[in-house]
Amino acid sequence: MGSVEDAREPRFPALTYIGQVAATYLLASNEGGDLILIDQHAAHERVRYDQLKKEQEEGTLSQELIVPVVLSLSQSEGHLLAEIKSLLEKEGFLIEPFGKDTWCVRGVPVILGRCEDPEAVREIITSTLQENQDTRLRESVSRLVACRGAVKAGVVLTSDQGEEIIRQLSYTSEPFTCPHGRPTIVSFTRARLEELFRRR
Amino acid sequence: MGSVEDAREPRFPALTYIGQVAATYLLASNEGGDLILIDQHAAHERVRYDQLKKEQEEGTLSQELIVPVVLSLSQSEGHLLAEIKSLLEKEGFLIEPFGKDTWCVRGVPVILGRCEDPEAVREIITSTLQENQDTRLRESVSRLVACRGAVKAGVVLTSDQGEEIIRQLSYTSEPFTCPHGRPTIVSFTRARLEELFRRR
Repeated sequence: MGSVEDAREPRFPALTYIGQVAATYLLASNEGGDLILIDQHAAHERVRYDQLKKEQEEGTLSQELIVPVVLSLSQSEGHLLAEIKSLLEKEGFLIEPFGKDTWCVRGVPVILGRCEDPEAVREIITSTLQENQDTRLRESVSRLVACRGAVKAGVVLTSDQGEEIIRQLSYTSEPFTCPHGRPTIVSFTRARLEELFRRR
Repeated sequence: MGSVEDAREPRFPALTYIGQVAATYLLASNEGGDLILIDQHAAHERVRYDQLKKEQEEGTLSQELIVPVVLSLSQSEGHLLAEIKSLLEKEGFLIEPFGKDTWCVRGVPVILGRCEDPEAVREIITSTLQENQDTRLRESVSRLVACRGAVKAGVVLTSDQGEEIIRQLSYTSEPFTCPHGRPTIVSFTRARLEELFRRR
């Protein structure tokens, strides 16, 4: 996993990692003794989205696939793909026509990894073809790329992995929401916990 | 720590221990992926209270102190102590007059432990003297004894200690409240967590 860090300060102070619940949420605490819950998928999505934006700025976006992915599309999908090809190229996809109704994906965004599953490539491109809001298409592709490789809910993480997601999240531009706007972090303040247990 | 277990079944299924937050709450999860918070002090109080009740039933209540605790009381406190001496004896305290306004505590409830801090003995007996609801006095003494030795909020516990409190709590008569009626357990169901993170 690449780093999203640059000269910026983290957006929240370092948290103490406690563990994982339901293989979906990371548990941590801050210095004040608040309980912090983090949605591992939403958080990782935010981290990857910021990585992608940084790579786009730096122009280090595309990598060639060792084995190109061949897509068979319907005629109307093929027309659409021809239209948005340059946009996909800006995201790091290298796509060429490969005969009747067939396209060859030779390169993908660096963030997708060198040995990326052909299904992921197929899914991102066909999902993009279904997207009908032209003006937001590029944003939509970025979100799909970020989401597709982010750790899923239901995946058991090691402490190191959990800690690393939280650390990287703290350096992102908007750590409290994922690129789709869902919350990444829910806090129970120490005062709230005291109320729940009638300690106050 | 003695065990409260007998032939009874645990009152809730085994939980998976995750960790501690704010050195006050234990975090665990159940098979359904719910997040379970446990107030370590309230839970331990419940465990000790049930131990005490069991010891009272079994008559194995009192232990002699290696070094007796001498209490200096005011005259009115001394009168009160003389009145409730037999009640304190039923709880496991062995108390004798020791000269003017002075009393000697030779034995304490087994649950307080063999090397109990003289301050704890003093605190329990003087708190009892301040209790004015006669009919509930015995219950009040039991609660004080249970509370005084229970692990405090703010104490960092090892995983083993945290797990053991939860395990013992599951075998108590009323695991969801402490003897004073405060909650010991607060659950966030998996569905509630999903709502909080807008996963549904």
